[in-house]
Amino acid sequence: MIDPLERWREYGEKPDYAGLLTFSGMPYTQDPAELAGVDIAIVGAPTDDLVSDRPGTRFGPRGIRAASCPHGPHLEAGIDGMEVLKVVDFGDAPVLPADAVRTHAAIEATVGQVVDAGALPIILGGDHSIAEPDIRAIATRRGGPVGLIHFDTHTDTGKEVFGVELSHGSIMYRLVEQGHVDPKRYVQIGLRGYWPGETEFSWQHERGITSMFMHDVREVGIRSVVERAVAIVGGGPVFLSVDVDVLDPVYVPGTGTPEPGGMTSIDLLWACREICSRVDLVGMDVVEVIPTGVGSADITCLVADRIVREVITGVALKRTSGS
Amino acid sequence: MIDPLERWREYGEKPDYAGLLTFSGMPYTQDPAELAGVDIAIVGAPTDDLVSDRPGTRFGPRGIRAASCPHGPHLEAGIDGMEVLKVVDFGDAPVLPADAVRTHAAIEATVGQVVDAGALPIILGGDHSIAEPDIRAIATRRGGPVGLIHFDTHTDTGKEVFGVELSHGSIMYRLVEQGHVDPKRYVQIGLRGYWPGETEFSWQHERGITSMFMHDVREVGIRSVVERAVAIVGGGPVFLSVDVDVLDPVYVPGTGTPEPGGMTSIDLLWACREICSRVDLVGMDVVEVIPTGVGSADITCLVADRIVREVITGVALKRTSGS
Amino acid sequence: MIDPLERWREYGEKPDYAGLLTFSGMPYTQDPAELAGVDIAIVGAPTDDLVSDRPGTRFGPRGIRAASCPHGPHLEAGIDGMEVLKVVDFGDAPVLPADAVRTHAAIEATVGQVVDAGALPIILGGDHSIAEPDIRAIATRRGGPVGLIHFDTHTDTGKEVFGVELSHGSIMYRLVEQGHVDPKRYVQIGLRGYWPGETEFSWQHERGITSMFMHDVREVGIRSVVERAVAIVGGGPVFLSVDVDVLDPVYVPGTGTPEPGGMTSIDLLWACREICSRVDLVGMDVVEVIPTGVGSADITCLVADRIVREVITGVALKRTSGS
Amino acid sequence: MIDPLERWREYGEKPDYAGLLTFSGMPYTQDPAELAGVDIAIVGAPTDDLVSDRPGTRFGPRGIRAASCPHGPHLEAGIDGMEVLKVVDFGDAPVLPADAVRTHAAIEATVGQVVDAGALPIILGGDHSIAEPDIRAIATRRGGPVGLIHFDTHTDTGKEVFGVELSHGSIMYRLVEQGHVDPKRYVQIGLRGYWPGETEFSWQHERGITSMFMHDVREVGIRSVVERAVAIVGGGPVFLSVDVDVLDPVYVPGTGTPEPGGMTSIDLLWACREICSRVDLVGMDVVEVIPTGVGSADITCLVADRIVREVITGVALKRTSGS
Amino acid sequence: MIDPLERWREYGEKPDYAGLLTFSGMPYTQDPAELAGVDIAIVGAPTDDLVSDRPGTRFGPRGIRAASCPHGPHLEAGIDGMEVLKVVDFGDAPVLPADAVRTHAAIEATVGQVVDAGALPIILGGDHSIAEPDIRAIATRRGGPVGLIHFDTHTDTGKEVFGVELSHGSIMYRLVEQGHVDPKRYVQIGLRGYWPGETEFSWQHERGITSMFMHDVREVGIRSVVERAVAIVGGGPVFLSVDVDVLDPVYVPGTGTPEPGGMTSIDLLWACREICSRVDLVGMDVVEVIPTGVGSADITCLVADRIVREVITGVALKRTSGS
Amino acid sequence: MIDPLERWREYGEKPDYAGLLTFSGMPYTQDPAELAGVDIAIVGAPTDDLVSDRPGTRFGPRGIRAASCPHGPHLEAGIDGMEVLKVVDFGDAPVLPADAVRTHAAIEATVGQVVDAGALPIILGGDHSIAEPDIRAIATRRGGPVGLIHFDTHTDTGKEVFGVELSHGSIMYRLVEQGHVDPKRYVQIGLRGYWPGETEFSWQHERGITSMFMHDVREVGIRSVVERAVAIVGGGPVFLSVDVDVLDPVYVPGTGTPEPGGMTSIDLLWACREICSRVDLVGMDVVEVIPTGVGSADITCLVADRIVREVITGVALKRTSGS
Repeated sequence: MIDPLERWREYGEKPDYAGLLTFSGMPYTQDPAELAGVDIAIVGAPTDDLVSDRPGTRFGPRGIRAASCPHGPHLEAGIDGMEVLKVVDFGDAPVLPADAVRTHAAIEATVGQVVDAGALPIILGGDHSIAEPDIRAIATRRGGPVGLIHFDTHTDTGKEVFGVELSHGSIMYRLVEQGHVDPKRYVQIGLRGYWPGETEFSWQHERGITSMFMHDVREVGIRSVVERAVAIVGGGPVFLSVDVDVLDPVYVPGTGTPEPGGMTSIDLLWACREICSRVDLVGMDVVEVIPTGVGSADITCLVADRIVREVITGVALKRTSGS
Repeated sequence: MIDPLERWREYGEKPDYAGLLTFSGMPYTQDPAELAGVDIAIVGAPTDDLVSDRPGTRFGPRGIRAASCPHGPHLEAGIDGMEVLKVVDFGDAPVLPADAVRTHAAIEATVGQVVDAGALPIILGGDHSIAEPDIRAIATRRGGPVGLIHFDTHTDTGKEVFGVELSHGSIMYRLVEQGHVDPKRYVQIGLRGYWPGETEFSWQHERGITSMFMHDVREVGIRSVVERAVAIVGGGPVFLSVDVDVLDPVYVPGTGTPEPGGMTSIDLLWACREICSRVDLVGMDVVEVIPTGVGSADITCLVADRIVREVITGVALKRTSGS
Repeated sequence: MIDPLERWREYGEKPDYAGLLTFSGMPYTQDPAELAGVDIAIVGAPTDDLVSDRPGTRFGPRGIRAASCPHGPHLEAGIDGMEVLKVVDFGDAPVLPADAVRTHAAIEATVGQVVDAGALPIILGGDHSIAEPDIRAIATRRGGPVGLIHFDTHTDTGKEVFGVELSHGSIMYRLVEQGHVDPKRYVQIGLRGYWPGETEFSWQHERGITSMFMHDVREVGIRSVVERAVAIVGGGPVFLSVDVDVLDPVYVPGTGTPEPGGMTSIDLLWACREICSRVDLVGMDVVEVIPTGVGSADITCLVADRIVREVITGVALKRTSGS
Repeated sequence: MIDPLERWREYGEKPDYAGLLTFSGMPYTQDPAELAGVDIAIVGAPTDDLVSDRPGTRFGPRGIRAASCPHGPHLEAGIDGMEVLKVVDFGDAPVLPADAVRTHAAIEATVGQVVDAGALPIILGGDHSIAEPDIRAIATRRGGPVGLIHFDTHTDTGKEVFGVELSHGSIMYRLVEQGHVDPKRYVQIGLRGYWPGETEFSWQHERGITSMFMHDVREVGIRSVVERAVAIVGGGPVFLSVDVDVLDPVYVPGTGTPEPGGMTSIDLLWACREICSRVDLVGMDVVEVIPTGVGSADITCLVADRIVREVITGVALKRTSGS
Repeated sequence: MIDPLERWREYGEKPDYAGLLTFSGMPYTQDPAELAGVDIAIVGAPTDDLVSDRPGTRFGPRGIRAASCPHGPHLEAGIDGMEVLKVVDFGDAPVLPADAVRTHAAIEATVGQVVDAGALPIILGGDHSIAEPDIRAIATRRGGPVGLIHFDTHTDTGKEVFGVELSHGSIMYRLVEQGHVDPKRYVQIGLRGYWPGETEFSWQHERGITSMFMHDVREVGIRSVVERAVAIVGGGPVFLSVDVDVLDPVYVPGTGTPEPGGMTSIDLLWACREICSRVDLVGMDVVEVIPTGVGSADITCLVADRIVREVITGVALKRTSGS
Repeated sequence: MIDPLERWREYGEKPDYAGLLTFSGMPYTQDPAELAGVDIAIVGAPTDDLVSDRPGTRFGPRGIRAASCPHGPHLEAGIDGMEVLKVVDFGDAPVLPADAVRTHAAIEATVGQVVDAGALPIILGGDHSIAEPDIRAIATRRGGPVGLIHFDTHTDTGKEVFGVELSHGSIMYRLVEQGHVDPKRYVQIGLRGYWPGETEFSWQHERGITSMFMHDVREVGIRSVVERAVAIVGGGPVFLSVDVDVLDPVYVPGTGTPEPGGMTSIDLLWACREICSRVDLVGMDVVEVIPTGVGSADITCLVADRIVREVITGVALKRTSGS
């Protein structure tokens, strides 16, 4: 394991823009054996072969790492999650361009190594299709489906998109049908816009999936929405999947299928922390991040980094509260 | 009429970035005869000769079309406006650079063709000066003034701007004075900043124009503001003119005279739909859109597209509700 | 003193993008003698030698001036602050690149000239380190500490940052320790993120500094926060220091250490005006502005300009109300 | 067939930024029957599923059309190719995202319609993988292999790239192996950088492919290089494939795998015209164009448009010279 | 006259990004009386009302000033033109948006003040239409036509463009027809692309205008081209008009009607200096500059600044050589 | 040492945009002990505290690594330098923001570790001030001055810049005066523009430094210039320092003090390889790189990467030729 902060030890603190590019300057390893004792392992999944509109999320993991800031106490939660928990950067899954099948296998294997080691995987996308190997790696190892809290503009429950079954718009359909996600414990938050249609919503209804729309957030507020989501997923294992396009495009100008009228970062950041401090989180991904700026200048990557930070803070709060 | 979706019929669905560039992939025609039976015709007005600050709205209509997404059910309204209504892209008015007079004549004639065919014109700007030919084309054909709901930072009621009478800042003065807008049925929403001054507000007061400021939106909320606007314009014909600079600049970084402290897209999108579902809409324009990005990546064009979608959805709601 | 509007007198009004580049087209002078009778003098402090992350604020003062619009009546306050008050652009302090010590001396001397002339200095940054010479110039001339209202994501109360004592992250520590800011009359608003830590907050607590976090703004609202701030600083002299990173990064994509989950421009603009209409303002700076666009197209500079306008409007309200 | 210029007839000339978006304002059709009598048909192939580095060429065809200028006399050649030849915009092939196989079938079918109609196809990419269906559509219809002049940094003769056989880096290998390109009449121009390796060059050597490197252009000049290329392809049918990354990245900042030290636009534009005025051109594509700007502001699209113009001019020169 | 360097006197040298924004930090005045003894006066003409494609040159003068560097010895010419000659920034002409007639009158009057004072005017555009008032101000005061060396992609000799007589594409026609430019002493350099057509070239031929195309530069070299140009204009008064689109778009990504295949900056910079060191220069403008970056980061403005520097250096060389 | 390619071994080749961010995917280490047997070690020096104009080179090392492509055979030289030589990425020196003195100490120590291990250091800047610790680390360890080939627009031989002795414009003066560079074996290539002045050139003359200007490159060609440079530095140890602003700004839009009229990348890339294949290279740096784009999209970083590649290729050529 290489510690990017080490070389700075005798000089001072490492600035964000210098040193080995890892998430928040955390130690780096590619060796599963070094995951022993690790609480959270960050995995990059730099792929965008399955998008239906604007590509570019293959640059997401590096962009998020470049926008990530050093750890410290969360000024609202009063806890430094990265001191409470041992976090490492497990690098990128060995993706391949123009080969979604092998790429997904690589992601599933890499996330699987994290799960096998007893650590919580946090995956940096990549397009949303990565959620399929992300969750499958966890569910297969746990021997049963997980609950799912899914922030997104879109349901991603198409049986196919543009006639393609393996797509960033069909993953949730596939995960439910494959038995990796329990539809009764699956909550969607932030839906809006003009997709999908009746077919998909009928299927969702039959399966018992819960949809909370953006107008629900607008009308009842994020607190009620989160309360309901937490109640629905209950006490079992929960995966959190955050498609950043749930946010209004002003927060995420770099995303593939932006939809105006979305959530604010204040609401989403609070919700991610709150949820993770209360549910039994078994994995998380943040997806559809297209960097368009440099270093800390890219606001899409910046909010993606902070989403992950709130997740880590939430997990730490749960850990320290003994719940 | 050319249907951009046709070539895809045997392959699948047309992606947004491919095929003939029309609004939402709707059929394209330049022939007024083909407007028979059409409910809504989109008209581009790519001109910016009359701006007082940053130019570039001549690229607006293409930008909005490039950012437009396929139709589908509105996830809040539960209706697909573009299935309920027949919408076509009637192309751009034959504008000319550096010749505002002929450009306005061309816009008025083109919008007039739509009105003559019994369709509702939705005009994509262009700078706000296009509202003059837009509304004149309608009012002259209706034989009397229309009501006006006008979202904007600025009143655009200067008698002149920089000494120029034909300007994007004088149109509302001109339309009222020409008798095309009924000042008693004219509501401004979102005013803020540092223009205009006493002269213009005195004239507005004399004429009986209603101004609702951005601080009104902030203090009483968008619902009250819309209620009041709908009440004022009443049951007669109404034109809706949306200068996107009514939004905070974060939503519309590509606009000519941005003013911080503006509306959110959530409020504006809701308001446009609500208004159009309740008033007798006879035309609409969305103006002051300067594209600065590519395809779906340009957030200003994206919100302009969605404003139009809410208008179409609202009209469809009114139609289907039988009101 | 040169008046940029003069040449336009016989032609009409000066457009924003033309003529001598001064703040809001105000007269320009470099001569302290010409400050006699001036109410407010704008001073640029184009420097960024002491930043810890992204540089570029050295281009801030020019960017803010380029984004500044002409004066006029504030549509909410109903007053034109720049008619009530005599405002001039006193140009930039004679900063030097790569020499923070001489740069700070130059800023202190220039701000001092404004204070000596009896005018209120408004300083356009520049990184936040300029607040040290800004406030010192005032406090030393007044013979005692000032109160401070400080909008920021960060406390800037490190004893050192990266081992450097003269830094944009240590100024508030230094000003308090030097006796130029009265910690009992020092209020921080908008704190969030992951810095600083226990050491700094302990020191703040000992000194009696008041911290209002971003979650306070979220929970109790900006009005309560401002009420409390105004009460704490009371009737004595007050400096207002606005680090634009207190805003969410969507409003200020061009800033050095952006932090998601921040204030809205609507809240901040209102707060700046309200505060300045009630306290005894003796100076103000707006800092950490990195222009990334041209003319009025740069939204970061635009909001920085409007922050200054609200300050001027607030001071004018106070003046005209006789308080 | 729709003529975008028609609506302007009574007003004046159509400006580039207005009206239906077609290549150079040429008439648009999707109907193969309307290709009768057409000399050249422009086909868009907006796809980038098979790239190995930066994606985005799916936006290429629209970008090139937006950057295209009206026709007129070529000031060096003294001929207006688009008056001599009948050129139409045949729209985009019905590509599908994330489905390279169906996309290639769609491209091959669309190009085939052009060939079947007796017109010369010019295809706007898209990534370089489109050259496979482009050339196959022609060669299968002609019943034998074509010659190929191929401007590129890379040979694109990998048997596979990243283990993927269908890739933008393997097309030329595939076309030769499939018998659609005659290796003895295949010339590569502009090779440089660090790819491919010995395996690929051995295969090329065995097959008799001619490679002219960028250092050949540098040392002997573009005229000699073109002479040699024209001699090698001789009198038979020739396809011209231009990967814009053959240019130095300064000319094409928007391309997927840029390589410094490339050709100048002056050389490439001259060469394209010269070649097309001398060989028996049966088709042409320009590929790897990623738009990053708006309208005529995008220099990559601009040079891609001008490459096509030189091709059209060259074909017209050949036609009028009676050769 | 205000000297931007003055405030730095006791601190050191003024950095480019600080202090009053004038050309190269030269003294600023708006007062014609202060032009006494001045050799060269810089005048801004920030207008773009008459463009036919992309607008934005209204931001040109400020952009060029922001990109301008301090004076110093020209490392090839061995002379510091701004020490030899007294140069001042005379500010912008009082242009008005959306009013080309009054704007041109304002430019003509301002340039006239410079000429009346005996100084050489250098005008920063602005679209190319400014050349009409620029040259008219000089020719009318001299009582006869001037010679003209005109670097450009386009001839700008349309009788009208898009039916508009007052246009950035008709100025040279107008100036010749008005008798302000002597067609026998008028040389165009760098023509290329697809405009104008036969009508315009016939008129040029009749008038005796000399056209040197970009392919002439390519074939015979810039030295021969300059020799011929200098010979044709001979010993009489000469105006130099440089449309930056004569350069390849890579040098001027920010220009309104870019045309690939253009001149290099090395050639153009040398040519401007060489010409000005040999002819009797009576005025100069650099036009069609659209800033797209900040400060010294905008390469279009940068090369425009250096064009002006070469002109100043050339004039200084002529002065010191006694010719 | 961590090998970023390792994880891909069973899947295929690592794409550029994935995996640990190291130069060209080379193994990473921070441990000097692991430098045994290494031929070349890449060191990042991400600092820009000492610039006089535009900052941002602190993001340079990461940007260059992100733009770096995998190794392979150089298509002109016919050799894969990174197979011939063992290259590792030694990470960044432990720089600190706003503390140039400690930063320089950190760079000198890190470069010194490379030299102590017997490897050749290649340092990625960072502003040009890093050349001082770069060369000092080498010269002090060798016990005497080195020769220097210095590509740059500017001489960087000011005794001070803006009154600051430690500056990116004074390093070459300092290195000569400190005895680390032998002025008789010091050659400058590419000088142009308006700095420095007589004082600096007099000092250079006295010291015997050789200056080859950009007009020398233009007049006699790069081959002659390189011949002369190689002859002057002769057989002793040579450091190569490449300030990318020696290139025309079109190649390096992201640099701090760009100067139009510069070298082409074709010339510079050839020259770097040629020089390194002939002299006794003891170290190299490439400086003044400001990333402005993402991944391989940033053309400034791209050319900086290729400069380093040519250096490695040149060293490999020298090694394999046995010279």
